[in-house]
Amino acid sequence: MRAVDIIAKKRDGEELSANEIGFFVQGLVSGEIPDYQVAAWAMAVVWRGMTPAETAALTMAMVRSGEVMDLARLGPVVVDKHSTGGVGDKTTLVVAPLVSAAGLPVAKMSGRGLGFSGGTLDKLEAIPGFDVSLSTGAFLATAREAGIVVAGQTGDLVPADGKLYALRDVTATVPSLPLIASSIMSKKIAGGADAIVLDVKVGKGAFMRTLDDARALAEAMIAIGRQVGRRVTAVLSDMNQPLGLAVGNALEVAEAIAALRGEGPEDLVEHCLVVAAEMLVLGERAADPAEARVQLEALLADGSALERFRRWVRAQGGDPRVADDVGMLPTAPVMRAVEAPRGGFLAGIDAEEVGLVSVALGAGRQRKGDPIDPAVGIVLGPKVGARVEAGERLLTVHAHTEDDADEAARRLLAAYTWSEEPVATPPLVYDVIRGE
Amino acid sequence: MRAVDIIAKKRDGEELSANEIGFFVQGLVSGEIPDYQVAAWAMAVVWRGMTPAETAALTMAMVRSGEVMDLARLGPVVVDKHSTGGVGDKTTLVVAPLVSAAGLPVAKMSGRGLGFSGGTLDKLEAIPGFDVSLSTGAFLATAREAGIVVAGQTGDLVPADGKLYALRDVTATVPSLPLIASSIMSKKIAGGADAIVLDVKVGKGAFMRTLDDARALAEAMIAIGRQVGRRVTAVLSDMNQPLGLAVGNALEVAEAIAALRGEGPEDLVEHCLVVAAEMLVLGERAADPAEARVQLEALLADGSALERFRRWVRAQGGDPRVADDVGMLPTAPVMRAVEAPRGGFLAGIDAEEVGLVSVALGAGRQRKGDPIDPAVGIVLGPKVGARVEAGERLLTVHAHTEDDADEAARRLLAAYTWSEEPVATPPLVYDVIRGE
Repeated sequence: MRAVDIIAKKRDGEELSANEIGFFVQGLVSGEIPDYQVAAWAMAVVWRGMTPAETAALTMAMVRSGEVMDLARLGPVVVDKHSTGGVGDKTTLVVAPLVSAAGLPVAKMSGRGLGFSGGTLDKLEAIPGFDVSLSTGAFLATAREAGIVVAGQTGDLVPADGKLYALRDVTATVPSLPLIASSIMSKKIAGGADAIVLDVKVGKGAFMRTLDDARALAEAMIAIGRQVGRRVTAVLSDMNQPLGLAVGNALEVAEAIAALRGEGPEDLVEHCLVVAAEMLVLGERAADPAEARVQLEALLADGSALERFRRWVRAQGGDPRVADDVGMLPTAPVMRAVEAPRGGFLAGIDAEEVGLVSVALGAGRQRKGDPIDPAVGIVLGPKVGARVEAGERLLTVHAHTEDDADEAARRLLAAYTWSEEPVATPPLVYDVIRGE
Repeated sequence: MRAVDIIAKKRDGEELSANEIGFFVQGLVSGEIPDYQVAAWAMAVVWRGMTPAETAALTMAMVRSGEVMDLARLGPVVVDKHSTGGVGDKTTLVVAPLVSAAGLPVAKMSGRGLGFSGGTLDKLEAIPGFDVSLSTGAFLATAREAGIVVAGQTGDLVPADGKLYALRDVTATVPSLPLIASSIMSKKIAGGADAIVLDVKVGKGAFMRTLDDARALAEAMIAIGRQVGRRVTAVLSDMNQPLGLAVGNALEVAEAIAALRGEGPEDLVEHCLVVAAEMLVLGERAADPAEARVQLEALLADGSALERFRRWVRAQGGDPRVADDVGMLPTAPVMRAVEAPRGGFLAGIDAEEVGLVSVALGAGRQRKGDPIDPAVGIVLGPKVGARVEAGERLLTVHAHTEDDADEAARRLLAAYTWSEEPVATPPLVYDVIRGE
């Protein structure tokens, strides 16, 4: 088998066999296939796409390129969730303790923020003492003992994905549905998931800008799941405006705690209930989403979810008192309330721009490895569809300096659009697609 | 400017500016743009193609990547010819002395054979003493003094092409019309040509298998010429069966000498007259091809072309007596006549297979740098369309050993197809396309 023949086959629109894909992925990881051949192949994949069988073969070849977590001892069905990333997306911080309280084991690997999109690990580290860098042994032990753990990648999982992604990033071969889908699915499968709920974000603050694109990605991942024996449910949810009100690490932790206390915000709680319900169904803890929802609402109402959050924070070295006193979280020296410059109906809050302003304030990164400031960020007031009076508080900027706050306020005001006519509240969830 | 943005633009089917293409070619030569980015870009070009303006910009950026020959002192219009390569194609050996005798300067760089396709330099080296490795100074002096020179590349011409081609070869990005066209044209332009006659071969023994593909390549090269101010004429000629009768280096030299003596073979002479006539027209030595043909036929008939061949051989260190005694050329120890196994009409002689058998005999190379045997090869008898009696001589194999001859005879017989019904003689020239 020669790499150049495999590239030519894909260039000509033919289907690659699982053997050919396995040979290519192995050569990519070992270095026997040089980067220039991988790059030409990736561009041919962007061009020609991949069949479901090819995409599944690529996913499993990437899984086999490294270690695979064995979570079988945690329970009969281990369910993971994955968000394609957005602005203000603190879903994991609410959903993880919620489903754990419902008896579903949570042993989740997560990532850091990059660009306008935040990352769960950065948010968790805003909690004093919270440790996200666990060894594989500590990760598994925490999962078994506390029933919940969320940490950075442990072990050498999916090295092929890391190498391929770095190359795609510099060769303009990122936008390929089968490459995106297999990248996500390979990491979830190597992480030990038997079933996966995918939270596919759609809109201006998401990688997928249109519902059609999001649906196509969801269906590609569901197809992989079907081929490799993993049940997959996709929730297509809105990311035109930020989710909830808080954007920034400590601010989002505080908001997640509020949600676990039953104190909203409404859109975040609703979104988390939808995702958690699908997880309980896949994890065979409920017969259907409606039944799951009854359970989950009870766990929120009786404090079980909040108590599971405390146990989680304690298990990973954090101070569990944060669940009762968000004042323990880091705070920014400058808090600037920004008033509405006009009255009217709020027609849009550009999620991408809010994310970028939050990065500019220091809450996120332009480049991998950049330091972040856990305290800074933005807390929104009224959201799209609301009627606003001129002079009413529109949002609050939490900044490191007055100058930062000035600049953020200026940019954020420009990210709002207005209407004289009433504006419908946008849908929170567009669709739920269940693999079988 | 960033390479990744240029790749993305081409990926998305947008037109690159001359600046962007220049930046890319410069980065490719300097090494500032790594191979993996060039490979992804090349695959995007295979996918999206290039506009005439982009192809011309790429051609001139490649020309600027190295030295350019200045042939202005040779005459007002320097005309080059280029063949896309075939089997038995000794056209340059006949055409160069012919047009030189007509007063057109010939200062041509040529190449070696690779795969089933032969190379002019290998053929010339079959002449005792003939030197094809000239310095730039010797090349120019010979052109001025003898009016004719054909040698390997002198100076550092088009380094971008060498680098890009090597990468395309291992990344399955060879088959791209704009990349092929700009590669050929950049070398001709850097070699100092004001005008170019392209001999585009079509058929089983050529890179272009169909007339449509050959026409598309011809038109791409003519379009480049139009954009960069070089007159280009393309001759689309048949390469389903070999050109002439001889395949193999010394055998082809002998056949070229026969043609210059007015002793055929008919198809070779006709083809050379067509190509040479177009060169005289572009070189402003004749008003039209018909007038050029009258001149050229006279130069063949009165021995001027043969005399110019002698002068050429002498000027490059060879023994000019070869023009009168082809027995001076190297000969193979084994000569095997192969008889027709049946009677009938000859329907096909697979040119590619004849070329491959000739390589197997030692006349060509599998890989660059392999040594070759100038003496071995094949001399065909009857060609497609002929009526053949069983037992008639079909061809002669010139081999190094009896075993080689056996194997060659076996393969060659299988390369012939037969018909009970009369078969039309295939056309020699399908079309001549003139740039303006």
